[in-house]
Amino acid sequence: MDLAEIHAAFRRIAPYTHRTPLLTSRLLDALLGKRLLLKAEHLQKTGSFKARGALSKALTLENPKGLLALSSGNHAQGVAYAARVLGVKALLVMPEDASPFKKAAARAYGAEVVDRGVTVENREAVAQALLQETGYAFLHPFDDPLVAAGQGTVGLELWAQAGKRGVFPEAVLAPVGGGGLLAGIATAIKALSPTTRVYGVEPVGADDARQSLLKGEIVRLAEPPKTRADGVRTLSLGRFTFPILREKVDGIFAVSEEAILEAERLLFTRTKQVVEPTGALPLAAVLEHGASLPETLALVLSGGNRDFSP
Amino acid sequence: MDLAEIHAAFRRIAPYTHRTPLLTSRLLDALLGKRLLLKAEHLQKTGSFKARGALSKALTLENPKGLLALSSGNHAQGVAYAARVLGVKALLVMPEDASPFKKAAARAYGAEVVDRGVTVENREAVAQALLQETGYAFLHPFDDPLVAAGQGTVGLELWAQAGKRGVFPEAVLAPVGGGGLLAGIATAIKALSPTTRVYGVEPVGADDARQSLLKGEIVRLAEPPKTRADGVRTLSLGRFTFPILREKVDGIFAVSEEAILEAERLLFTRTKQVVEPTGALPLAAVLEHGASLPETLALVLSGGNRDFSP
Repeated sequence: MDLAEIHAAFRRIAPYTHRTPLLTSRLLDALLGKRLLLKAEHLQKTGSFKARGALSKALTLENPKGLLALSSGNHAQGVAYAARVLGVKALLVMPEDASPFKKAAARAYGAEVVDRGVTVENREAVAQALLQETGYAFLHPFDDPLVAAGQGTVGLELWAQAGKRGVFPEAVLAPVGGGGLLAGIATAIKALSPTTRVYGVEPVGADDARQSLLKGEIVRLAEPPKTRADGVRTLSLGRFTFPILREKVDGIFAVSEEAILEAERLLFTRTKQVVEPTGALPLAAVLEHGASLPETLALVLSGGNRDFSP
Repeated sequence: MDLAEIHAAFRRIAPYTHRTPLLTSRLLDALLGKRLLLKAEHLQKTGSFKARGALSKALTLENPKGLLALSSGNHAQGVAYAARVLGVKALLVMPEDASPFKKAAARAYGAEVVDRGVTVENREAVAQALLQETGYAFLHPFDDPLVAAGQGTVGLELWAQAGKRGVFPEAVLAPVGGGGLLAGIATAIKALSPTTRVYGVEPVGADDARQSLLKGEIVRLAEPPKTRADGVRTLSLGRFTFPILREKVDGIFAVSEEAILEAERLLFTRTKQVVEPTGALPLAAVLEHGASLPETLALVLSGGNRDFSP
């Protein structure tokens, strides 16, 4: 994956995605002593950046009969949306005990949810059987060059939007789960501005990416981590994403659950934006590791799909 | 109060306020069968339109020693902010049992909160005594031409922003409590476009404005109404605002608590915006009275100051 492939992904997906705004907040800047540019992917189609990757891949398929994914999160909605754009069916394999809220969200986008008798253990086998039966195309949530190139368009856009304002971020921070978003953004940013640092952010209890970069090999968590940030509960980086992060990313910050909650609260009360816990990870890193970070920062607010509580 | 006074208010406050964006949502439009323009006053300085009115009045005072207000809500923050702009002190008289969250918000803006021994019953007497003692200027939350002219700048701005997109709203909907916002907006809109309808929205349990317009005289609620929409718990319209509403407003919609909650939920989950219950009133009217409303509507999201719950 290189900058040209991210440009190509941008051309594919542009008609079906938003150029999400780059928000600023003088209140947050004054509070934190930084200059923050907030890339508002919570305002993206389907409420997260996942629509970009799913579309980027789906739009390269030749006459697909349908799309199939294993996900109960934002990737599910991205795939459902991509299927609607293509005018084909989406099959989403989710554990029977996945949140009814998330199943409903996927169905609202017109996808069919397969959950009868599905568990975390057997879901890959269920998906494999369904792929053979239906002939649908499988969309991996992150470990695919075309998906990661789609997510990389976030970096492309934010760099252009910052430049238009005459601002050049010294560092870009994005959440890291499987690494598709971070690999895409790092590829874009390092090609456009090699001196700009690119950092991933993950919860302390799910710091497999940090450990993997330190150890020089993929470290896999023993079990799904407990963290508010449900978008980065992935057990490990992918075989495709890991070498890219190793080459291009300057470091991974691990943040506490308290810092994630405080970052969500700041975004909610100060910027009046609904951002999900995963989307608040980069701001949590500014709260907890601000002293190690330069002044001008672009933070990727990756998504906004959280339940409404009155 | 006329359009020229609203223009003058705009010139006074423009350096210290945001031109808040006019948001659109294809999802909401498709869901409701309308074309909605959302005037985002939850993104205004202090998190609500109240900063406009407070500044509009405060900036006409000659060398004030300080500002004093009776409020535990958004007006308090507006006055605190106006005092900071002027470089003078703000005194806010609040009942001792007002929410600590709201007291903290006022203090965060640099205001002094007077609450020791203050009750809903004695607070006007407390304020009167403080005014004599301090010589500060009193800022009424709504029943003042300069305050209402400040709130009217919301109408001025939204009309210009809509026009820039080639959209001319057939109706404008705003919350109504004491009537300052609605009087200001109706004055601006009816001067700019006499055929555009202007409606107020209030909760069914606090429908004094609706009753007042029907009866042709100010109807006063017997006690503070119970409603989620804490910004419109005012007992009655003002002597200044009532005749303006009577002359210029096309009607008042009363909405149920269920509709308010559903409107908040829609704004939260579909537009990812944090809007307080009062700010969701206009959308609640579209949910409950959509059939009586034209297609192209401007809705004033009046504020976004709500508590964060994880």
